[in-house]
Amino acid sequence: MRRDHAFADLFAPDGCLDAAAFAQSLIRCPSVTPRDEGALDLLQSVLESLGFSCHRLPFDAPGTARVDNLFARLGCGAPHMCFAGHTDVVPVGHPDSWQVDPFGGLIEDGVLMGRGAADMKGAIAAFVAAVSGFLAAHKGGFDGSISFLITGDEEGPAINGTVKVLEWMAANGHIPDMCLVGEPTNPSRLGEMVKIGRRGSFNARLAVCGHQGHVAYPHLADNPIPGLVRLLEALGRDQLDQGTAHFQPSNLEITNIEVGNPATNVIPGKAEAAFNIRFNDLHTGDSLEHWVRTRLDAVGVPYDLDITVSGDAFLTPPGPFSDAIAGAIEARLGEPPALSTTGGTSDARFIKNYCPVAEFGLVGATMHKANECVSLADLAALRDIYGDILDRLLA
Amino acid sequence: MRRDHAFADLFAPDGCLDAAAFAQSLIRCPSVTPRDEGALDLLQSVLESLGFSCHRLPFDAPGTARVDNLFARLGCGAPHMCFAGHTDVVPVGHPDSWQVDPFGGLIEDGVLMGRGAADMKGAIAAFVAAVSGFLAAHKGGFDGSISFLITGDEEGPAINGTVKVLEWMAANGHIPDMCLVGEPTNPSRLGEMVKIGRRGSFNARLAVCGHQGHVAYPHLADNPIPGLVRLLEALGRDQLDQGTAHFQPSNLEITNIEVGNPATNVIPGKAEAAFNIRFNDLHTGDSLEHWVRTRLDAVGVPYDLDITVSGDAFLTPPGPFSDAIAGAIEARLGEPPALSTTGGTSDARFIKNYCPVAEFGLVGATMHKANECVSLADLAALRDIYGDILDRLLA
Ligand SMILES: [Zn+2]
Ligand SMILES: [Zn+2]
Repeated sequence: MRRDHAFADLFAPDGCLDAAAFAQSLIRCPSVTPRDEGALDLLQSVLESLGFSCHRLPFDAPGTARVDNLFARLGCGAPHMCFAGHTDVVPVGHPDSWQVDPFGGLIEDGVLMGRGAADMKGAIAAFVAAVSGFLAAHKGGFDGSISFLITGDEEGPAINGTVKVLEWMAANGHIPDMCLVGEPTNPSRLGEMVKIGRRGSFNARLAVCGHQGHVAYPHLADNPIPGLVRLLEALGRDQLDQGTAHFQPSNLEITNIEVGNPATNVIPGKAEAAFNIRFNDLHTGDSLEHWVRTRLDAVGVPYDLDITVSGDAFLTPPGPFSDAIAGAIEARLGEPPALSTTGGTSDARFIKNYCPVAEFGLVGATMHKANECVSLADLAALRDIYGDILDRLLA
Repeated sequence: MRRDHAFADLFAPDGCLDAAAFAQSLIRCPSVTPRDEGALDLLQSVLESLGFSCHRLPFDAPGTARVDNLFARLGCGAPHMCFAGHTDVVPVGHPDSWQVDPFGGLIEDGVLMGRGAADMKGAIAAFVAAVSGFLAAHKGGFDGSISFLITGDEEGPAINGTVKVLEWMAANGHIPDMCLVGEPTNPSRLGEMVKIGRRGSFNARLAVCGHQGHVAYPHLADNPIPGLVRLLEALGRDQLDQGTAHFQPSNLEITNIEVGNPATNVIPGKAEAAFNIRFNDLHTGDSLEHWVRTRLDAVGVPYDLDITVSGDAFLTPPGPFSDAIAGAIEARLGEPPALSTTGGTSDARFIKNYCPVAEFGLVGATMHKANECVSLADLAALRDIYGDILDRLLA
């Protein structure tokens, strides 16, 4: 049975926000990047009812879609703790692969189904519900302030989202003392993993130019492929490092080679490769460029190298912030989480330029897939954990 | 001034065929492979007027265009000398790059212009004109016999042309004692090069399979590119040979690498390369496969190899046949030709399975290009040289 919630239905009889009902309502907004479809309005109306001051921050740029964002803050004191996330979701893929309406928000057998359930409308609902409970328990006031940095551009190009909201926050005195990102950090079981850093990502295109010709007359041509092969062989020879206490070893992967010459009797004029390095905090984009060029230059083959660093490595060293998160997890679930730096990039790579940042959310097993879902038990547990984190840091 | 020749206009006042007028008429048939457009009819009518018995040999095969061919023979005795060539031409390319009508056959300032002038309607016309003069000079008869093996499928897939005509010739007792192919063998000056062999051509596709994944989780993937790079590096390490008295060193060229993975955060699942070996008569397709697999196997990376040998190397060792060709060239032009085995493949690679074969024709500088042309002086000299070859071998 499906029923649209009236606003009042989002709250339990005790006056606190119902995380499941709120997550369900968010899922029913089909906010595939860059569309919003009412998701931010719904979130803003709930936050305003809790006393937050809300700022809508739409941004655009030439060649990009206009994206709406929300910054909301309650109180103005320190410590200022920010919850960061996104209301946009990835496309549903082939609708036939879903057993339910991806935007229906069906709850069945204790599971809430729909696009965004795990990544990350469920976590947003859990955090707002936690704040709702925290405020009810601290009617006399609390130390510090709580804010939300919510973008509609995390799953897209990430140009008109978190980066620009952070700039606005800096310009308006809203930089927090710590930030918790609600991405689904747990591979398979709630509570197993908190992310306290991320590896950086270094992309490069490597091109070798030669001179096209006919295979029967090789002296009139200059085949770029053997040179490219030697350069790529040189890049694969050395390990970048052995890893650190908090990071896996940095890793280089050649992702593509393109020559584009279907003619078997033609020597091509150009050969290109692409490679990616996921790197830990022993490196920066600049130090990696030096590492790469040193090895390429030693080969003695002229090359062109075009580099894009989409995020430096960062680490929020274990300390009071991660202790509060890990403590709340162990208290609720009985086991402490791993403090990890594995996996892909998230908007945390932008936030780390402003304040310590850690990530903890739901189980990611179904994220970006058909039949994405979250169990109501996980949702309730995450709400409790978020609430305990608030208690440990702000009460 | 353009004028279509009546049949009689193809002959000079002395009754002998006019090579320039005949070449011009052949050019005016726009016989782009697989079309004939009257070229073979015109050739056949001239040869019949000289006394040749003509056999039209159209062939087709599933998935290929039907192609017409001509075998013509005069006399039945030995030695039997065959002239081989093709009336089809390559496409004109962009018409704007031509200064004249590609099929107009314009003669201006002593130059005949048009598609096929050099490759190889000019040579066909020169040979028929040489036969015409030879017959006029030997009205009492001559030793042996003369034949023409003319295909309309040399510039195309070469499936329904020379190969099948040769099978028909073998079945009908028409295998010659020697064959002269009229391809444009001279890089820049008439008489500089006779081809007495060709290198073979060995094509291979080399594939390495891995397992696709995300660059952030390399332990869950298996990147095929480093293995392919090592295999290609191994192929480039050794020279195949140092060449022979009549052949350049065999040469391997990697012509393509294809991965087809545009996503910079994805480890691809498959990587493929293509390479070509032009090889001399120190090798065969089988011996090369062994050479290649020995080097690939030593790397220890599993691979798939798919081989196509489009022609073994062959050599018609210098002897009476090449002596006659070289002698006629030196007598007419004052300098002996080089006896070469360089360059690409031609239909000679099929003929060598049946009889000694050599190639000599016009200057190839403009072949397959816009504004293809031949000088009337070269055309007359080639006619004289072909005539002297007939004298040296058949008179
Ligand atoms: Zn997310
Ligand atoms: Zn040709």
